[in-house]
Amino acid sequence: MNLSKYKIAIGQINTTVGDLDGNTEKIVNAIEKAKQHNAHLVVFPELAITGYPPKDLLLKSSFIEKNREKLDEIIKASEGITIVVGFVDVSETKVPRDVYDISSRFYTESRILYNAAAVIQNGKLIGKYYKSHLPNYDVFDESRYFETVKDIPLFSVDGLKMGVNICEDIWIDEGPTERQAKQGADFIVNISASPFYAGKGNIRRELIAKRARGNSVPIAYVNLIGGQDDLVFDGGSYVFDKKGRLIAHCRRFEEDFALVNLESQKEVILKENLIKDIHDALVLGIRDYVRKNGFQNVIIGLSGGIDSALTTALAVEALGADSVLCVLMPGEITSKSSVEDAQNLAKNLKVKCKTISISEIFTSYLNTLKKEFKNRKSDATEENIQARIRGNILMAISNKFGHLVLSTGNKSELAVGYATLYGDMAGGLAVISDVPKTMVYQLARYINQTNKTDAQHPITGLSYNPYGRSVIRPAGVEIILQNILDKEPSAELRIGQKDSDDLPPYEILDPILQHYIEENKTKVEIINSGFEKEMVEEVIYKVDHNEYKRKQAPIGIKITPKAFGFGRRMPITNKFK
Amino acid sequence: MNLSKYKIAIGQINTTVGDLDGNTEKIVNAIEKAKQHNAHLVVFPELAITGYPPKDLLLKSSFIEKNREKLDEIIKASEGITIVVGFVDVSETKVPRDVYDISSRFYTESRILYNAAAVIQNGKLIGKYYKSHLPNYDVFDESRYFETVKDIPLFSVDGLKMGVNICEDIWIDEGPTERQAKQGADFIVNISASPFYAGKGNIRRELIAKRARGNSVPIAYVNLIGGQDDLVFDGGSYVFDKKGRLIAHCRRFEEDFALVNLESQKEVILKENLIKDIHDALVLGIRDYVRKNGFQNVIIGLSGGIDSALTTALAVEALGADSVLCVLMPGEITSKSSVEDAQNLAKNLKVKCKTISISEIFTSYLNTLKKEFKNRKSDATEENIQARIRGNILMAISNKFGHLVLSTGNKSELAVGYATLYGDMAGGLAVISDVPKTMVYQLARYINQTNKTDAQHPITGLSYNPYGRSVIRPAGVEIILQNILDKEPSAELRIGQKDSDDLPPYEILDPILQHYIEENKTKVEIINSGFEKEMVEEVIYKVDHNEYKRKQAPIGIKITPKAFGFGRRMPITNKFK
Repeated sequence: MNLSKYKIAIGQINTTVGDLDGNTEKIVNAIEKAKQHNAHLVVFPELAITGYPPKDLLLKSSFIEKNREKLDEIIKASEGITIVVGFVDVSETKVPRDVYDISSRFYTESRILYNAAAVIQNGKLIGKYYKSHLPNYDVFDESRYFETVKDIPLFSVDGLKMGVNICEDIWIDEGPTERQAKQGADFIVNISASPFYAGKGNIRRELIAKRARGNSVPIAYVNLIGGQDDLVFDGGSYVFDKKGRLIAHCRRFEEDFALVNLESQKEVILKENLIKDIHDALVLGIRDYVRKNGFQNVIIGLSGGIDSALTTALAVEALGADSVLCVLMPGEITSKSSVEDAQNLAKNLKVKCKTISISEIFTSYLNTLKKEFKNRKSDATEENIQARIRGNILMAISNKFGHLVLSTGNKSELAVGYATLYGDMAGGLAVISDVPKTMVYQLARYINQTNKTDAQHPITGLSYNPYGRSVIRPAGVEIILQNILDKEPSAELRIGQKDSDDLPPYEILDPILQHYIEENKTKVEIINSGFEKEMVEEVIYKVDHNEYKRKQAPIGIKITPKAFGFGRRMPITNKFK
Repeated sequence: MNLSKYKIAIGQINTTVGDLDGNTEKIVNAIEKAKQHNAHLVVFPELAITGYPPKDLLLKSSFIEKNREKLDEIIKASEGITIVVGFVDVSETKVPRDVYDISSRFYTESRILYNAAAVIQNGKLIGKYYKSHLPNYDVFDESRYFETVKDIPLFSVDGLKMGVNICEDIWIDEGPTERQAKQGADFIVNISASPFYAGKGNIRRELIAKRARGNSVPIAYVNLIGGQDDLVFDGGSYVFDKKGRLIAHCRRFEEDFALVNLESQKEVILKENLIKDIHDALVLGIRDYVRKNGFQNVIIGLSGGIDSALTTALAVEALGADSVLCVLMPGEITSKSSVEDAQNLAKNLKVKCKTISISEIFTSYLNTLKKEFKNRKSDATEENIQARIRGNILMAISNKFGHLVLSTGNKSELAVGYATLYGDMAGGLAVISDVPKTMVYQLARYINQTNKTDAQHPITGLSYNPYGRSVIRPAGVEIILQNILDKEPSAELRIGQKDSDDLPPYEILDPILQHYIEENKTKVEIINSGFEKEMVEEVIYKVDHNEYKRKQAPIGIKITPKAFGFGRRMPITNKFK
């Protein structure tokens, strides 16, 4: 067949880990849609049947078996079309791995697993490709589960030679893509589950364009979309022609279905807006964590500060105002303006807001501990007690009514331990815990700005953005008030407290943190790039010293190349200075 | 040289991750001692210079460099002796790995690392061995950091051919040990950092005996000792002759220094006592976590139940009674006998015990939330509030005086989520969180029993165990009273509450949990092994559903083949049933 007549459908679906029935249903539905549009081929993301990353579910034999059963269902739905879909394959030969080590024997059960792509046609599994480069850095653990083979096959479909490879494979210079091109592939399909961080869209496009151009082969790159715990998969599947020109793409941060062929199309120019992308990732991350875990509502403690304001605005976009409950918990130190700012924010966003004073409870703690704390000065202890009372009140309402608690701490605070364990750190999802404080302001301004320019829906009064999609927030309003943007950050846990009493200014702290955490630079390198020695040492000390707090933090949505959490594995007991 | 005259010293040292200075000092001291005893060779554990596991410290270039500098110090101390010591080697050729992926570029910085053994003699590094089998399952992540090579060299030392391999290497059938033996090794040294679980000592001995016998080669197996976060390395270094007879060994759970040669010694018979081993592992795990993190004292909430009683007894053994503060926090539901039992336990252990009532604070929470909770029945919410008040009081004392909070929940509770996040789960170290409830009783009885049989020290009145080592607890007393052992388990958070209201009896729950978590059996397999279908389904549901709680749990000391924590990586968002 002529490549210009070959019609490919891209099924950019939002899978859920472990939901093999639901994922397969989405796959089969998209296959039907592709057939209706007379597509020759339909492609789905990496491990689309299981969801990504399945982690230690892969060690369960029943999980692997059910994934194979679901593949059979998909095979049955393949009459009249070719399908490429990610699944877990298991080797038929059982190889005893180690008769001595109980732990490894239990976990692997002597089976060998492959991160695989099935090539299916007319009711038959006509071929399999096994991922040959397993990512095992940052959040990736694929060597824990999968093996590789040296075989890099091509598949004959509809008179064309198709190369298939999986995610990491295409990132490797002189890897499977080159080999498949040299073997004479007419086109290459890469199925991915590539998680988002800010800027990755550009990096991916440059990479795939280079692969297409360098090998003179069209490439369809099909990425997963959806939130899964700490990760957001941003979709944005791409098709490049053999000159490396982008000729089609799917939407980012949404499910999408695209029909393309691999030749004679106009080049598409895409531009990224980093802050918009981060915003969209956070909204999707919230929505999918909340919904996929079966929650209807969330609860957020509002302080009148920027972090809880941003978290609330994002939650409203993700879930709708009716699903968000705010609780304002003033104490003795809380300023009148904080209360007003919080109430105005809630009003702007049309969310319910309750006010529950912590004063009586705080007094009872001080009374109860009076004897123990006799002759001791007030210190961080009393600050932490207040933060923990607030955490407990949110958890109590959560326990009673079933809301999920969203915590509101940012990455800068979490990095240096400027947060109270079991206090403001309490919650099921730490929405902005990978967002540095300076970026919190950028996101707040972005929300205000888009909200002003968005059109108002004539009936709902909600805003309509330039893409014509409704955004669930009141139009025309400055959501996060100037007052919140302007005020000096304060935890308001002691009289006159300001963040700047305890921390370097965020404009200096954030770049130091980026050098240290995301770029993994040494102390000397950071100092040499123009920061004060003492300040760098203090920041590094605080980051290192607060590993124990982060160990117990809720998961947070990853939006930078290096988030705290699963992708950063530091010992707590650590004397390295 | 004749093998029978070749004298080997084993430096079974307690390293600390990141303490490159301190670890090297211990190594150099043991080298001096070995020289004084005219040893020809002295051997240290895997990654002895860095401590194990160094985790993402390995991604810091300054860490790798300092580890190389420390190796130079050791080389300088090697005049007149041969040394085998674990370190991290880095390839001299920098290979750009991937120019596109920011994340991997940042992390690897294009360097290639090896988990290495240095062979040092008379001021020179005469050879290096690179670990060839990297464990990457359970708690192990070595493929994240290290590469392997195919080279399996032998080293000529003092007229003998020595094979060196590292930890996992010796577990592999037809692996490095066989290859070195076939190349004509006169003896083999394995340097390990093999973490403890109950029963592993026997497994290791059987394995190494088999390797020695099967290859007709003597083997010195040198293991790390010490606690590092969730792991306890139990030492117990072994020397086997070429017939596979154990001819020498180091103590377990203690630093040790042994001098042996590889021939003509009497066979040693070792017997393991599983409960004693678990007990010793927990004591070492507490001591090292507390001390290596710079704490002097710990604080424990005493309830009158068995879990907090056992935790306190273990902490007293680990740290001494003066370093342990107990706090009894009775509420409205707390029974008189619980208070008495707790007070008696504290008296038995000679620890300070404060009593702080939670009643006033609890009342203030109920008052504060009265409006919100109007017309709602009392439920788990009110139970959790009480647990969280206790957690907050412990944290407040910790914040004010610097004690580390030890939490007291067992593995059975943690598995099914029968614990309050930020309440009884609060703390820095969850001492018995890998100990199933039925084993909690066994450990308590073991402590009572050994305490009765131990001799009383004539001056201190503390107990002396059969090995002549002092145990820091009053002799002759039944530490954990019969009353605590006999009473039915209860969280005492509502009137008349018993664990058995909400959970299957522990004698049934624990085996189900073992099948599901440690042995990774499927639901069907567990039912078929003789458990009620509904009960199995309920337990599995609870285990799966409570992943979010365990995500935020403090680290716990691993004593089974599969603990919750770093070695078990389950998604929270997970619809697999």
